[in-house]
Amino acid sequence: MSDLPASIHIQPIGRVYSPYRQKFAIPRQPGLVSQVEGVIELLGEFANGDLVRDLEEFSHLWVIFLFHATAADGWTPLIRPPRLGGKIKKGVLATRSTHRPNPLGLSVVRLLRVEQQAGKVRLVIAGHDLLDGTPVVDIKPYLPYADAHADARGGFADDRPTTDIAIRFHPDAERELLRLAPRYPLLRALISDILSQDPRPAYKKSRPLPQRYGMALYDRNIRWLLDELGMEVTAVERLNEQLLQAAADD
Amino acid sequence: MSDLPASIHIQPIGRVYSPYRQKFAIPRQPGLVSQVEGVIELLGEFANGDLVRDLEEFSHLWVIFLFHATAADGWTPLIRPPRLGGKIKKGVLATRSTHRPNPLGLSVVRLLRVEQQAGKVRLVIAGHDLLDGTPVVDIKPYLPYADAHADARGGFADDRPTTDIAIRFHPDAERELLRLAPRYPLLRALISDILSQDPRPAYKKSRPLPQRYGMALYDRNIRWLLDELGMEVTAVERLNEQLLQAAADD
Repeated sequence: MSDLPASIHIQPIGRVYSPYRQKFAIPRQPGLVSQVEGVIELLGEFANGDLVRDLEEFSHLWVIFLFHATAADGWTPLIRPPRLGGKIKKGVLATRSTHRPNPLGLSVVRLLRVEQQAGKVRLVIAGHDLLDGTPVVDIKPYLPYADAHADARGGFADDRPTTDIAIRFHPDAERELLRLAPRYPLLRALISDILSQDPRPAYKKSRPLPQRYGMALYDRNIRWLLDELGMEVTAVERLNEQLLQAAADD
Repeated sequence: MSDLPASIHIQPIGRVYSPYRQKFAIPRQPGLVSQVEGVIELLGEFANGDLVRDLEEFSHLWVIFLFHATAADGWTPLIRPPRLGGKIKKGVLATRSTHRPNPLGLSVVRLLRVEQQAGKVRLVIAGHDLLDGTPVVDIKPYLPYADAHADARGGFADDRPTTDIAIRFHPDAERELLRLAPRYPLLRALISDILSQDPRPAYKKSRPLPQRYGMALYDRNIRWLLDELGMEVTAVERLNEQLLQAAADD
């Protein structure tokens, strides 16, 4: 026990660029919304192609990152996982909650390619659940013989989270998504996938219908509602970055 | 980019107790020597049963830990993986090397049980590759639907590391292992598994035969040699803790 360090410094080696602009609209676990691309750009002294030499031999990577959006909130020993309706408490170490003793996150992502130009080193990834702006502190190759345990028991999180709520798009939203398709070809599928996981915060689920929500994806604000028929995407608007920042600062 | 933290503090939440007393004799990846037990004991304010409530619903855990034995050595952009004979350089982020920008390790372990008594909280684990004394900074449940990717391509580390070197035990060593069996029933299997992965440091492999080595497991020093016939375990002795400490301080 003698020589355990009291604390150590770690520093970001990279920064995530992602369509997920709010924690609220991030798929609860990676891989479910599998086509969405993101980028990890290496920072400062780590923006050196040597660090990622032959990384493309691997199809999947581990990303260890900081829960920067919630780190300042601290941690708590017991967590109410949204998957359990927000009513049952589990030990924080028995969850993937962001409110951990050390605010470290862990996600597997698919590596599509490594781009190097103009002194920048960028890993283009897919199948991730990383918030835009996330600081990355480590990247490791995924080794299936050591890391893949399909027979593991998953406890209360055993099944993929899905709902059977019907999802529909208002014609105005449909038209706007069609107009944006050349720029964001996956946006419609992404919205469907996120809504099918029911991203509503647990404490809002008991409010009277219709319930109205918005979520930021790329530079767009997606408006949707829940009524007796299911979920409807009502509008796809340009995102007001100031409002997003103000909401984040709350 | 604006609000990326320059560095953050993380602190150990637990400490590993393990038969692996030297980096040299640790299986290169977890899971290969699957029966060997270890313990993660939660430390200080984290020694609170609430943190691990219902953790036993999961069969496997992620452990994020500090490479404490090598952290002071710093990092290097390019690594010569021992698996490739120590001659080919790979980017550090394309390896699981300990000499990383942030000295964070990642291992999956099997959770056998959680023990709580006399104010201590201990996770009994198996199938791990953790050095005795390792500081643990996070524990997360393994979620097979998100974490298991048996189809991932593993690059140069695609296959389990094995050698076809024959392994034999000298009668003296055999007798001592038999005598120790009530206390360390898995020690003989552990030695076989470690030697079958050829734990020799790459730079020593070209030395003339016979080559002689020792490795610390539990409180024992295992002496073995490599000659034209293969590997032979020649002696199983009580470990001299002072010598081990001196070697670690070199």
